[in-house]
Amino acid sequence: MDFYFSPLACSLATRIALYEAGASARFFEVDGKTKRTLPDDASFWEVSALGLVPVLRTDSGELITENAAILQYLADQFPLAALAPASGMARTRLQEWLCFIGTELHKGLFVPLLDPSAPAEVKAYTLTKYMGRLDYLEQRLRGREYVLDGFTVADAYLVAVLNWSIATSIKLADWPAIAAYHKRLHERPSVARAFAEELRLYQQEQARHSRAATAAVESQSV
Amino acid sequence: MDFYFSPLACSLATRIALYEAGASARFFEVDGKTKRTLPDDASFWEVSALGLVPVLRTDSGELITENAAILQYLADQFPLAALAPASGMARTRLQEWLCFIGTELHKGLFVPLLDPSAPAEVKAYTLTKYMGRLDYLEQRLRGREYVLDGFTVADAYLVAVLNWSIATSIKLADWPAIAAYHKRLHERPSVARAFAEELRLYQQEQARHSRAATAAVESQSV
Repeated sequence: MDFYFSPLACSLATRIALYEAGASARFFEVDGKTKRTLPDDASFWEVSALGLVPVLRTDSGELITENAAILQYLADQFPLAALAPASGMARTRLQEWLCFIGTELHKGLFVPLLDPSAPAEVKAYTLTKYMGRLDYLEQRLRGREYVLDGFTVADAYLVAVLNWSIATSIKLADWPAIAAYHKRLHERPSVARAFAEELRLYQQEQARHSRAATAAVESQSV
Repeated sequence: MDFYFSPLACSLATRIALYEAGASARFFEVDGKTKRTLPDDASFWEVSALGLVPVLRTDSGELITENAAILQYLADQFPLAALAPASGMARTRLQEWLCFIGTELHKGLFVPLLDPSAPAEVKAYTLTKYMGRLDYLEQRLRGREYVLDGFTVADAYLVAVLNWSIATSIKLADWPAIAAYHKRLHERPSVARAFAEELRLYQQEQARHSRAATAAVESQSV
């Protein structure tokens, strides 16, 4: 498998699932700004027409996009890792939470808050409209270790999304069950490893962008 | 089953799926403004903590929320209707499209455009950021009758979402394959019936809100 990701993007969930499954994959880093892959410097637009990570290329060459699809695909490919209930109402519950995390938290709440191009009105509107979703999540996580009965790909997705709060005005400490869940999940080896690796890559990416910006300014002032 | 919907909301997709499956259900209309159900005038908040349709109550009393979960549940309950591939890569492709429609089109593009409380800056930002998703969809639908190889719940969802364009500045005619798809889907009996029924209910809802607003003004001017 080939796995396309950007450091600390929602693709972190796929990396966590890969580690949980003990699956081997080739990792291709996508620079979120230039949309080029590292280290081969190819255009990511050739892989994803939307320019969005994660993308998974299966061993038979099929490209899979969209978190809910990739995470369920991996869970089904590696059943021994028990990353998703196989079928029935338990699987429906997983799909419910993948959908809630994807639509209400990821797309609804966090994407506008994280977007440096979003005007202040957009951020204010987003907080008014979507902050209450965290109250709902708080209710769910009270007295629970995971979103469902055991660790699933929904937790991999949720922890990746909750990580973003640090770059927003959202303070997870205001939701004690969410904060405790987030801390607990980060103690899980797959999450700790994935996060540490991508944090380092994220810092390298920031440094790269900073050098590029400096070089651009210098070339203009010559 | 009990099915909670609001006229012409995304829950239209569930109604289409129910008609396709020939499934019987009790229908509960939720007034989007008052969050009360009709005709029994009960609080919808007791059913959905988020106040969001669709909600499905199964015969064994389980409440299911979220489009991607409900639509896949119905497809699996009524396999003869062939509303979703049962498994494998074909199922992954269905999940990919349910996720794309739910996150990029429904939540990303349309929700802010339809929200009367969204400021102009939010609508402008939304169009800039998400309009290109329709180009992607256009590419997909060129030369195709459905999103996947045959009619699936992804089409039920997509047609429900595309209906909303009429209430926005988006002109589907600018995307010929999407416009043709939308028209073609509306000729399908399940879609035509579901849309006609909900359009009537939507008009009744608008009239009800208009009467309530008039009554409120009159009571203030006494």
